[in-house]
Amino acid sequence: MRETRDTFHLAIPARDLDEAFTFYVTGLGCKLARRYDDRITLDFFGDQVVCHLSDKIDHDVHMYPRHFGITFRERADFDRLHALAKSRDLEFFAEVGDRFAGRVEEHLTFVLKDPSNNLLEFKYYHDPRMMY
Amino acid sequence: MRETRDTFHLAIPARDLDEAFTFYVTGLGCKLARRYDDRITLDFFGDQVVCHLSDKIDHDVHMYPRHFGITFRERADFDRLHALAKSRDLEFFAEVGDRFAGRVEEHLTFVLKDPSNNLLEFKYYHDPRMMY
Amino acid sequence: MRETRDTFHLAIPARDLDEAFTFYVTGLGCKLARRYDDRITLDFFGDQVVCHLSDKIDHDVHMYPRHFGITFRERADFDRLHALAKSRDLEFFAEVGDRFAGRVEEHLTFVLKDPSNNLLEFKYYHDPRMMY
Amino acid sequence: MRETRDTFHLAIPARDLDEAFTFYVTGLGCKLARRYDDRITLDFFGDQVVCHLSDKIDHDVHMYPRHFGITFRERADFDRLHALAKSRDLEFFAEVGDRFAGRVEEHLTFVLKDPSNNLLEFKYYHDPRMMY
Amino acid sequence: MRETRDTFHLAIPARDLDEAFTFYVTGLGCKLARRYDDRITLDFFGDQVVCHLSDKIDHDVHMYPRHFGITFRERADFDRLHALAKSRDLEFFAEVGDRFAGRVEEHLTFVLKDPSNNLLEFKYYHDPRMMY
Amino acid sequence: MRETRDTFHLAIPARDLDEAFTFYVTGLGCKLARRYDDRITLDFFGDQVVCHLSDKIDHDVHMYPRHFGITFRERADFDRLHALAKSRDLEFFAEVGDRFAGRVEEHLTFVLKDPSNNLLEFKYYHDPRMMY
Amino acid sequence: MRETRDTFHLAIPARDLDEAFTFYVTGLGCKLARRYDDRITLDFFGDQVVCHLSDKIDHDVHMYPRHFGITFRERADFDRLHALAKSRDLEFFAEVGDRFAGRVEEHLTFVLKDPSNNLLEFKYYHDPRMMY
Amino acid sequence: MRETRDTFHLAIPARDLDEAFTFYVTGLGCKLARRYDDRITLDFFGDQVVCHLSDKIDHDVHMYPRHFGITFRERADFDRLHALAKSRDLEFFAEVGDRFAGRVEEHLTFVLKDPSNNLLEFKYYHDPRMMY
Repeated sequence: MRETRDTFHLAIPARDLDEAFTFYVTGLGCKLARRYDDRITLDFFGDQVVCHLSDKIDHDVHMYPRHFGITFRERADFDRLHALAKSRDLEFFAEVGDRFAGRVEEHLTFVLKDPSNNLLEFKYYHDPRMMY
Repeated sequence: MRETRDTFHLAIPARDLDEAFTFYVTGLGCKLARRYDDRITLDFFGDQVVCHLSDKIDHDVHMYPRHFGITFRERADFDRLHALAKSRDLEFFAEVGDRFAGRVEEHLTFVLKDPSNNLLEFKYYHDPRMMY
Repeated sequence: MRETRDTFHLAIPARDLDEAFTFYVTGLGCKLARRYDDRITLDFFGDQVVCHLSDKIDHDVHMYPRHFGITFRERADFDRLHALAKSRDLEFFAEVGDRFAGRVEEHLTFVLKDPSNNLLEFKYYHDPRMMY
Repeated sequence: MRETRDTFHLAIPARDLDEAFTFYVTGLGCKLARRYDDRITLDFFGDQVVCHLSDKIDHDVHMYPRHFGITFRERADFDRLHALAKSRDLEFFAEVGDRFAGRVEEHLTFVLKDPSNNLLEFKYYHDPRMMY
Repeated sequence: MRETRDTFHLAIPARDLDEAFTFYVTGLGCKLARRYDDRITLDFFGDQVVCHLSDKIDHDVHMYPRHFGITFRERADFDRLHALAKSRDLEFFAEVGDRFAGRVEEHLTFVLKDPSNNLLEFKYYHDPRMMY
Repeated sequence: MRETRDTFHLAIPARDLDEAFTFYVTGLGCKLARRYDDRITLDFFGDQVVCHLSDKIDHDVHMYPRHFGITFRERADFDRLHALAKSRDLEFFAEVGDRFAGRVEEHLTFVLKDPSNNLLEFKYYHDPRMMY
Repeated sequence: MRETRDTFHLAIPARDLDEAFTFYVTGLGCKLARRYDDRITLDFFGDQVVCHLSDKIDHDVHMYPRHFGITFRERADFDRLHALAKSRDLEFFAEVGDRFAGRVEEHLTFVLKDPSNNLLEFKYYHDPRMMY
Repeated sequence: MRETRDTFHLAIPARDLDEAFTFYVTGLGCKLARRYDDRITLDFFGDQVVCHLSDKIDHDVHMYPRHFGITFRERADFDRLHALAKSRDLEFFAEVGDRFAGRVEEHLTFVLKDPSNNLLEFKYYHDPRMMY
């Protein structure tokens, strides 16, 4: 179990802040914490993601080695986020799939792509001890 | 406050997994959760960081737009991590500094560099409401 | 998730304190924390509502822009409160309805009216991330 | 102690949503959860405040019978919010004062006024049992 | 919700400490915290009950005005305790009954009698808001 | 540590319910949960105390074998309750004393007497492991 | 309920540290916290187990008087760990059995043997009050 | 942070159960959960220790490879337990010492010996991240 008092933070590039706002707040349902000229800070599922205005956008988009996201403890939370992404027409990089089927590490996963080509993976493990 | 039941996860490149193990586990005191041929998974301050074996290493290292880390709620935790990093000779990209002095967003920060040039920023805000 | 150590507080008008006591404590099942000549303070689902003796009562009652209430995380809590309100003959301003059907923001809601025409809305969202 | 899983919600009038955003998000440090044409929803210290576009603004502003706010458990949180309000030039309706001095109910309080004349009171009780 | 850091404590008479130990520890499954010549202290469902050696035993046993016990949040905990009491042949003063049927305050209850005629009532409310 | 979801409940006699209300709610700062013709139910520091109208009042008042109260984890909570009792002129059966001085079980204690001669003891142990 | 801030720690012998790593981390899914020449420290289901390099290995293996393990509150956690042990071919000293059937203490249990002949017992009680 | 819902359990030998009771309950302040003819079960700082009647007692007592105990998060808890052990004349195998001084792993430690020669180590780390 993680501490509630500390937060993870992640800085990522955004080619346009309004576009990032639309994807993360209006789309994904994250909360906007602060807005500056060169970045917006988000409460991303309880942690902090900062979108920095930047031209260092990946144009050749691959799953590895860089992506981020949330691993849900409850299957219902995974399903609800998937439904939200479909309902709000967020762009999928990969639809729901089952990885490591038949092994203890088996998990469901889907991947979204934000407007600046950052990849967001959401996961649900059948055995929560595999979340790490 | 964030949920304890879900975890943030972040995938980053590592040019060598033993080297990554040495930096994150032996050095930074993270826990090794799993080891595969192509990656190691870490319990990084309660969230998951996965080091993927990769040759996509940044050689031109900048603070923006990509870095990650922990924002501590308690000053003592920030200080202890800084002491650990000094004591164990981890590489600093930036020593402790004070950002936004005199403003509500004021915070202490220092930045480490892992062997694959990923930047890790650790922060402490005087006002915890600014953690987001 | 919200902090447990702080509380929200809301002050509202009451034309008569005994009447307010009857509605909030005997009816709605809130706890009376304190009673003064000019107000009563209530533990309202864990937060504080203060009924101030006042003649500034709204006579033209509308849902917007002012109302307050609780958003339940669990459907069973919503249903139980609805059953309590029916069983104890509390006055409904609006019976249970489904708002934003088919959208992610979809939620169940009903609205009570206290004897001083304050409106209390109770909600349940299918996706708890929409509670904010 | 209150439940963490439910949230209090309060609807208030706003004459202008950008102005409300500036006061609550940029100023007070609340998080923007959602924005619609006719309202914005805020994560207000862990609970939900919704600003509805409305012309029902109070022009004759009084402390009673309507106001809302947060009662802090820790003195430091009260002081930090006061410092933030001063630093960011938020409008005070009443500066820090000591109410019920010498009695068990003694508490510190200050009151802000949002651009639509809603009053926000922040309190700190020396005896936390008086928070209700 | 109650604080976890404080505990309720209750002192009751016991005509014989070994007998009290047999009833509360061996029977009811409470934990023995301390034993002195004139009393035993128990961790009674997380709170403290102290059995004081005394000849002030009630011989005329009534449900009112004195009894004590636990109100369970979960039905399963109520049922399990009842099963334990049956399985271990603890003395029932009243078998499981349904009080206030059809009202919001409806709850299940059964009552045990310890060897010194103290009555222990265990309850389960259909609506947990009625636990107070 | 005790469970937060269950509550302890204690039934005690009261010769007069208004008097009991004055002592427990107006005086001691407990919350009134419910009022019936023959009893009032209280949120007593997070647990439930029920005052039943009764003529079975103890006229010969002794500390043993029957009394109840709260053991505080924090010294400040003990001190604040003592200050409240003094400030509001509650009747002391025993002023603050130090029991078992020099032993591990050492604790501070004071005892109040309610209008129906029930004794309430409040304690603070230097070593919290002795709270049971 | 136990405190989350403290941890239990247990030191056990290991004839070979790589072998211990393989059993506890790769097999059982525990996290490696630290590695030294003469021991490895593990986050074992939230507590600490330290494997010390030693030749004091038990060759005559019995269930009593020494073994250790985890008692799960939820049946699903027990079942998942059993599935993991089967799937990863960990050595069973005893397969799943039902102890004290028909009594309140009834529980499911299985026992693993690590490469240094330490026995690990995992349990699930039907009545969680019997976990102690 | 560890889960509160599961418990660690450890079985150890005891040459005499009354003697074990005296050491663990009367001495160390653990709670007795259950007593059988061949063992006693203890709530040992929130986890379960079971003393099994056995003649497999270690006569040649060494710190490694077998011992167990608690690592405290707070220095005050460590100090209080040490004071208790001194005050109640429990047998020390090793007095308070400072291990790994000057390193991040630095911690205070003392070791008790129970009547059956089991060693109990209690620790306090200056950096709580080293508790694992």
